[in-house]
Amino acid sequence: MPRINFHLQLAELKDKLLAMAALSQQALEFSVEAYLERDMALCDHVLEIEEAINAAEKMVHEMAYELLAKEQPMAIDLRFILSVIKINGDLERIGDQAANIASSAQAMKNEPAIALPVEIEQMGESAGVMIRTAIQALLEADPRMAESVLSMDDAVDEANKTVQAALMETMQSQPDLSVQALTAILIGRNLERAADHATNIAEDVIFWLRGSDVRHKFSLAEAE
Amino acid sequence: MPRINFHLQLAELKDKLLAMAALSQQALEFSVEAYLERDMALCDHVLEIEEAINAAEKMVHEMAYELLAKEQPMAIDLRFILSVIKINGDLERIGDQAANIASSAQAMKNEPAIALPVEIEQMGESAGVMIRTAIQALLEADPRMAESVLSMDDAVDEANKTVQAALMETMQSQPDLSVQALTAILIGRNLERAADHATNIAEDVIFWLRGSDVRHKFSLAEAE
Repeated sequence: MPRINFHLQLAELKDKLLAMAALSQQALEFSVEAYLERDMALCDHVLEIEEAINAAEKMVHEMAYELLAKEQPMAIDLRFILSVIKINGDLERIGDQAANIASSAQAMKNEPAIALPVEIEQMGESAGVMIRTAIQALLEADPRMAESVLSMDDAVDEANKTVQAALMETMQSQPDLSVQALTAILIGRNLERAADHATNIAEDVIFWLRGSDVRHKFSLAEAE
Repeated sequence: MPRINFHLQLAELKDKLLAMAALSQQALEFSVEAYLERDMALCDHVLEIEEAINAAEKMVHEMAYELLAKEQPMAIDLRFILSVIKINGDLERIGDQAANIASSAQAMKNEPAIALPVEIEQMGESAGVMIRTAIQALLEADPRMAESVLSMDDAVDEANKTVQAALMETMQSQPDLSVQALTAILIGRNLERAADHATNIAEDVIFWLRGSDVRHKFSLAEAE
């Protein structure tokens, strides 16, 4: 019963990816908390989670490649495995963004705190919701849920512009706080990028389920 | 002769990817020149090239997916197509970085120029060499050439730190130039990221040719 075995392996691949997704989401949310609370122990924890994410990426890549090589899947199964390969890369990059934020928080340890725009915390929450929703859409094979993620990205981009403008003002009016303000700007960009990766994941879920690449609005239906 | 046809299609896929790579490399090099020379016409040209890159990405993705779906390739051919899918994504993101740089240059059009660290121009050149070398390694199927790209990345990261430190000083000593200094810092990060994408491409070339993922140092040889 090779096909039954194949579908068990696909389910296992999905489980591994979901476990990794939970780590990436956690790393990102913890990194923002660690930065805002100046919690150095939590920074260390984020960097540990990021190592676990890198190990998970390796395992998922290996398993996806072997399934492609040995099972030669067709249509929706092929699209699933290709999506897993791409989502795997995005989850790993979310881990990178979390690690960047944690490292920035560590670097600010001995600098006086500055007033931060509230949008930074909001961006962290929004990015977390986007990652969780994209992953839930993967779990439930729900393309509409994945679509809802795409509509959240603009708000994060807008919040990032607000963050950048507010901190530019801080830099100009209080040049002695430039280091902290620049760090906060870069963390805003890390969060914007994490939200972009969540968007990529949602697009891959849609590609898997519908066979069309939403990013570029062309149809692969003929490959069915 | 389906297999001969398949290999002709693989060659065509490679040609399309190489043409796209030439665009990405050009976009990045032009974007740095446009920023340093404050050349608005060149900024527009970079943004046009980026649109062409996005169209090329669409085409390459579609072709790679159809080859996977219809031909069910094995071993090195499978790895080649998977590498093409990943390289395609990295080339598109290099285009994004170039477009970001061009947009930043446009935004600075009416701001007084500031003294920029020489490392920005050097980073642009290094990123260009890395992209060109990674693509040449793809063209010549030369894993050693691809390896040489990996060793160039550290220098770009170092240059970026120098850029950031120098411009932090500008911000602190001349707060009225903060906008220009921040823009230059963000352009440094765009270039660092472009170099990262070149590194990813080199790693994918090595994966294609050797069947091992250099990023994570594990072997997929058993999948042969």
